[in-house]
Amino acid sequence: MTSKQKGRVLLAMTGYNPRPWYELLAKGRPVVTEPDGPQDPSITYAVVWKQKPNLLSRLPNLRAIFSVGAGVDHILQDATLPDVPIVRVVAQDLTQQMTEYVVWRVLDHHRNGLAYRAQQKRKVWREVPPAGDVAVGIMGFGELGRAAAAALVACGFSVNGWSRTQQAFKDVETFHGEDGLKPFLNATDILVVLLPLTPQTKGIVNHRLLRQLRRKNALGGAVLVNAGRGRLQKDADILKALEDGTLKEASLDVFEVEPLPRTSLLWNHPRVFVTPHIAAMSDPAELAPPMLAQMDAFDKGKPLKNLVDRSAGY
Amino acid sequence: MTSKQKGRVLLAMTGYNPRPWYELLAKGRPVVTEPDGPQDPSITYAVVWKQKPNLLSRLPNLRAIFSVGAGVDHILQDATLPDVPIVRVVAQDLTQQMTEYVVWRVLDHHRNGLAYRAQQKRKVWREVPPAGDVAVGIMGFGELGRAAAAALVACGFSVNGWSRTQQAFKDVETFHGEDGLKPFLNATDILVVLLPLTPQTKGIVNHRLLRQLRRKNALGGAVLVNAGRGRLQKDADILKALEDGTLKEASLDVFEVEPLPRTSLLWNHPRVFVTPHIAAMSDPAELAPPMLAQMDAFDKGKPLKNLVDRSAGY
Repeated sequence: MTSKQKGRVLLAMTGYNPRPWYELLAKGRPVVTEPDGPQDPSITYAVVWKQKPNLLSRLPNLRAIFSVGAGVDHILQDATLPDVPIVRVVAQDLTQQMTEYVVWRVLDHHRNGLAYRAQQKRKVWREVPPAGDVAVGIMGFGELGRAAAAALVACGFSVNGWSRTQQAFKDVETFHGEDGLKPFLNATDILVVLLPLTPQTKGIVNHRLLRQLRRKNALGGAVLVNAGRGRLQKDADILKALEDGTLKEASLDVFEVEPLPRTSLLWNHPRVFVTPHIAAMSDPAELAPPMLAQMDAFDKGKPLKNLVDRSAGY
Repeated sequence: MTSKQKGRVLLAMTGYNPRPWYELLAKGRPVVTEPDGPQDPSITYAVVWKQKPNLLSRLPNLRAIFSVGAGVDHILQDATLPDVPIVRVVAQDLTQQMTEYVVWRVLDHHRNGLAYRAQQKRKVWREVPPAGDVAVGIMGFGELGRAAAAALVACGFSVNGWSRTQQAFKDVETFHGEDGLKPFLNATDILVVLLPLTPQTKGIVNHRLLRQLRRKNALGGAVLVNAGRGRLQKDADILKALEDGTLKEASLDVFEVEPLPRTSLLWNHPRVFVTPHIAAMSDPAELAPPMLAQMDAFDKGKPLKNLVDRSAGY
C-alpha cells in the first residue's frame, strides 16, 4: 500500500506546535490540519493534543484517536468525542525522561540541594546532616510510576506505590484503592505524583492529603514532587502546606494553570522548585514512526496497543 | 573474652571529632586517644584519620590500622608507618551515599538544573532543550565506582568505566590503564572522578585531561564531577577549563585545600556546584561495630577483610 491509498490523518492540536508532527506523519500518510467539512470521509485517524470540541464527532470513517502526550485528559474533555479507540503514547524515551526527573528531584530533596546551594552563596563550608533512610511514595503506579520505582530502588530508596487497582512490584510496598491511601501516605516521606487526571483525581493533592504524609522523619519534613498533571493539585493548598509545616519542600513541574502565571507565589517560594512542564517532553521524531506503524497494523486487522480505558478515564 | 582482656584501641584522629568514635568503640574495647609513651605495649589496633606522623611507628604490639574513611591516602602519607595490615572502610551506607551523590549530580547537569533555577528566578516559563543521550564516564572503578555505574545504568545512562587494571561490568564499557585513558575520555560527556589519591593519581584531573572529554555533544559541553579526593584535581585548571569552553559545568565535593578557602574563585563560579566534602559521610554508628567485629575475628586468627594494597597505594 502506498501512502496515497491510505486514509488521511487529521492533526488536531491546540497550544502545541504541529509543524514537526506534520512533517513526520506525512512521511507515511496524507496529513491535514482541518477536515474538509465536519463529515470528511477521507479521515481515518486523528492525532491530537487538546483538540477543538466537536471536531471529531461526525467524521464517519474515523478509526482511532492517538494522543501525542502520555495523559489523555485533554482528549476526554470533549463531550462529543466519538466512540472509537483512543491510543496513549507509551515510549521508552518518555518513560526514561520521567524516571530521570523523578530520581533527580527526589535526590535533590534527599541530599539537601537547597541548603547546599544557599551555603555556597555565602561561602559556608558546613555539613548538613544527611537525611538517612526515607521512603518515597509513588502515587499512580502505571508504566511511568513503575519505571521510576525501579530506578529509585536501584538508588537505594525504600519505595511505596499507590494505585487505583491492586498491583505487585519487586521491592516496592504497594497499596491500592481508597482504603490503601491513608496507610500509603502515612508511610511516605517524599510523595511523587504521577496520576492520570480524571474526575476522581482532580484536586486530589490538597491540604487534607498532604497532612497525612509523614513529617517527623529523617528529612525534617515531608516533600511533594508533582510530575503528573497540574489540576491534580491545589496550588493554594501547597503554599499553605509549605507555610504551616505540612510540607518542607516541593518540586513542581505542573500547575493548575500553565504557563504558571507570573502572579503565582509558587515562582518565588524559596522552598519550591518550578519547572515548565518539562519532566517528559514528547519528541515527535521518536513518537511519530510507531504511531504510523500502529495505523498500518490496525488497517490490516491487528489490534491497537496502549489503549485508553475510557470508563477509568485514562 | 570481655573487653578488659582485649588489647587497647588507639583512636588517632586530627581534623575530625573523635567523640562519637570513642563512645562507640569503647563498647567493645578499651580505647585511648594517646598511647602511654611511644612504645605502649597495650595498643593492638589503631583507628585513624590523618594520624600524627610517627605516632604509630614504634608500638610493638600493633596488629592492624583501620581507616575511618574510604580513602587511605591520609594514612599512607606517614613516612614511618609500621608494616601492619591497613583496613579500609567498606560500608553499605557509604557506598549508598556516594551512589546518590553521583546520580544526583549527573542528573542535575543532564536535566539542566542550573538553567531552570535561573529561569525560575526570573519567572520564565520556557523549555530548555533536553540533552538526550550522553555518556557518563566513571574514573576509578572500585567498590564505589561500580555501585554508581549500576545506578546510572538503571536510570538509563550509557556508562563508561576506567580503572588501573582491567575490569568487566554488566552494561558498562570498560577501559583500563594508560592506553585506555584517551579512548575513555574521548567517549565521555560527563566525567565522574572516584579515584583513590596515590602518587600516580595526584593532579591527574588537569587541563590536559579535561581537554580530551567530548564537548561537541547533546549537553552542549563536557561536565566534571569530582567526589574522590581534592588533590586529584588542579583547582586552577578547572577554572581555566570553565572559561575556555573545555568544561560546561562542574560539581565539586572535594578541593586541593579543604575547607575551600573563601578566596577561591570556585565558590562564586556560576557554573560550579560546591559541596563541603559530603558526598559520603562516615557515620560512626554504622562503621564502628563492624570494625570491632573485625578486630575480634583477627584476634581469633581469621583474616581481615577490605585490606589496602600498599604497593598500589589504595
